[in-house]
Amino acid sequence: MDIKAGLLNNNKRAAARLITMLENGIEEALDIIKECYHLTGHARIVGITGPPGAGKSTVTDKLAKALRKEGLTVGIIAVDPTSPFTGGAILGDRVRMSDLSTDPGVFIRSMGTRGALGGLSKAAHGAVKVLDIFGMDYIFIETVGVGQSEVDIVKLADTVIMVMVPGLGDDIQAIKAGIMEIGDVFAVNKSDRDGAERTAAEIEAMLDFNKQEDYRPSVVNLIARDNVGVDKLLEAIENHRAYLDASGRYRSRKRDSLRTEVIEIFKENVIRSVARLEEDTNVLEELTESVLERRIDPYTAAARLMDSFTENGV
Amino acid sequence: MDIKAGLLNNNKRAAARLITMLENGIEEALDIIKECYHLTGHARIVGITGPPGAGKSTVTDKLAKALRKEGLTVGIIAVDPTSPFTGGAILGDRVRMSDLSTDPGVFIRSMGTRGALGGLSKAAHGAVKVLDIFGMDYIFIETVGVGQSEVDIVKLADTVIMVMVPGLGDDIQAIKAGIMEIGDVFAVNKSDRDGAERTAAEIEAMLDFNKQEDYRPSVVNLIARDNVGVDKLLEAIENHRAYLDASGRYRSRKRDSLRTEVIEIFKENVIRSVARLEEDTNVLEELTESVLERRIDPYTAAARLMDSFTENGV
Repeated sequence: MDIKAGLLNNNKRAAARLITMLENGIEEALDIIKECYHLTGHARIVGITGPPGAGKSTVTDKLAKALRKEGLTVGIIAVDPTSPFTGGAILGDRVRMSDLSTDPGVFIRSMGTRGALGGLSKAAHGAVKVLDIFGMDYIFIETVGVGQSEVDIVKLADTVIMVMVPGLGDDIQAIKAGIMEIGDVFAVNKSDRDGAERTAAEIEAMLDFNKQEDYRPSVVNLIARDNVGVDKLLEAIENHRAYLDASGRYRSRKRDSLRTEVIEIFKENVIRSVARLEEDTNVLEELTESVLERRIDPYTAAARLMDSFTENGV
Repeated sequence: MDIKAGLLNNNKRAAARLITMLENGIEEALDIIKECYHLTGHARIVGITGPPGAGKSTVTDKLAKALRKEGLTVGIIAVDPTSPFTGGAILGDRVRMSDLSTDPGVFIRSMGTRGALGGLSKAAHGAVKVLDIFGMDYIFIETVGVGQSEVDIVKLADTVIMVMVPGLGDDIQAIKAGIMEIGDVFAVNKSDRDGAERTAAEIEAMLDFNKQEDYRPSVVNLIARDNVGVDKLLEAIENHRAYLDASGRYRSRKRDSLRTEVIEIFKENVIRSVARLEEDTNVLEELTESVLERRIDPYTAAARLMDSFTENGV
């Protein structure tokens, strides 16, 4: 299969394969991304996070369906740092989405840890790029919980939805301030439950406290299961995007996200260089021999070693 | 002061300054080493290690004096990973060597940790090179204890003396097998104490157990304080060196040591690159802007970032 041609011709299997190749660090996959990178920037990227049990995947599900009704295409990347599994619809919640997964305008992908340091974040970034090139209008990045690695990943979104649920009691305070702050839109799901108003009020109070200069996140009550409030949530996402565009914050947000990504790729390259040192000893042996013969000194040898790894790999 | 000219003209202060510059990672110092690297390879490098209290510095002291009587010059590098101090004669034991330190044919240097990962080992390697270029006939690397970092450092020697002492009881077994194995010569110091014979016998038993194909380390009894057995120890060092030369093991040992050094410099460069990423953000900002404009992709940006650090630094 010609992956690149498939990707550009709406072939889901090509997109899935390319994501797997990226996860496995296959160089050809990076080459395809590099060649197609200029095609990115079309998709609206929405992060969906919040405590476990808040119903994040149901929210994603309903948002995706609403967007599909408008004729828009949707990619969903479900990120689970606690799972070693990756690939198709593995997460339990995804089973509910079976009607979505057969929809040709929807692409669903689950991602678990790949063992590599920073691997999940890099994989998620890679998957977003693939789905962006693939032409998806919306890309949802959904996390299982609100751990630090998940927060880091969800930050690459243009808009972050923080899904809360009544009955967490004092848990809003328990969710670290730094995590609440990444929410651009707050969704109080399961709003038919007792305490929904209190939860919304607590969020509003927190927003009063953490006032931003020119944007105040919306707090939307919804019952995702019954499709109640989903349109309002979609509207809140649109409003946030409109704010980003009008204020010029879109660009600065993208810049921050890209800077973080470049740093992460850099650091992973560094880690990989060290690993390669142990796998590929040919260059090292040649350089050691040159030092032994006093043709070069050890400092020059070390610099050349680094050069050779940087030239060959990405 | 022209450091390089001083170094080549027997100026101790120039050598001391160059070692300090190397410790501080000053690039000019590396340039001098690079320019003079072809002058290395003259010195015989002897490591002196063993448990604390075995009298290692007295052994070094007496060996140095015996060599001075033969008209040979001696460099002494005392390595103490437990001390943050570095520079002149700071270690307590070195005070006893005051008569040596005023001898123009002797160069003494203490080295503590420099905070940087792998820093002490790199500094010790650097100091050995400086003293080798400086023309010392013998260079002793003496450690305070037998910790892993000290073992790694002492391994750069051509010959490693493991100084033991009676009364360690079962401690010979306690010293990890991998550490005993680095001894090319065993010195049982304070041999006037009870149990000296037993200690020697235990070492011999260990040597029976860890038989090497073509070389068996000597076990020398000595009372360094009273200068008893020092000549025998010197003879054992010479014998080991003769074995290395005759068997071709000298070259393979040097190769192993250089390979390790190149790897360590490489890894330190890597660590420094990551640190530089946080200090010098100009290149990062430029590259991020290029990605934002989609002139390049994030992978290419990360690779260029690495290039820029490798080009500028050593």
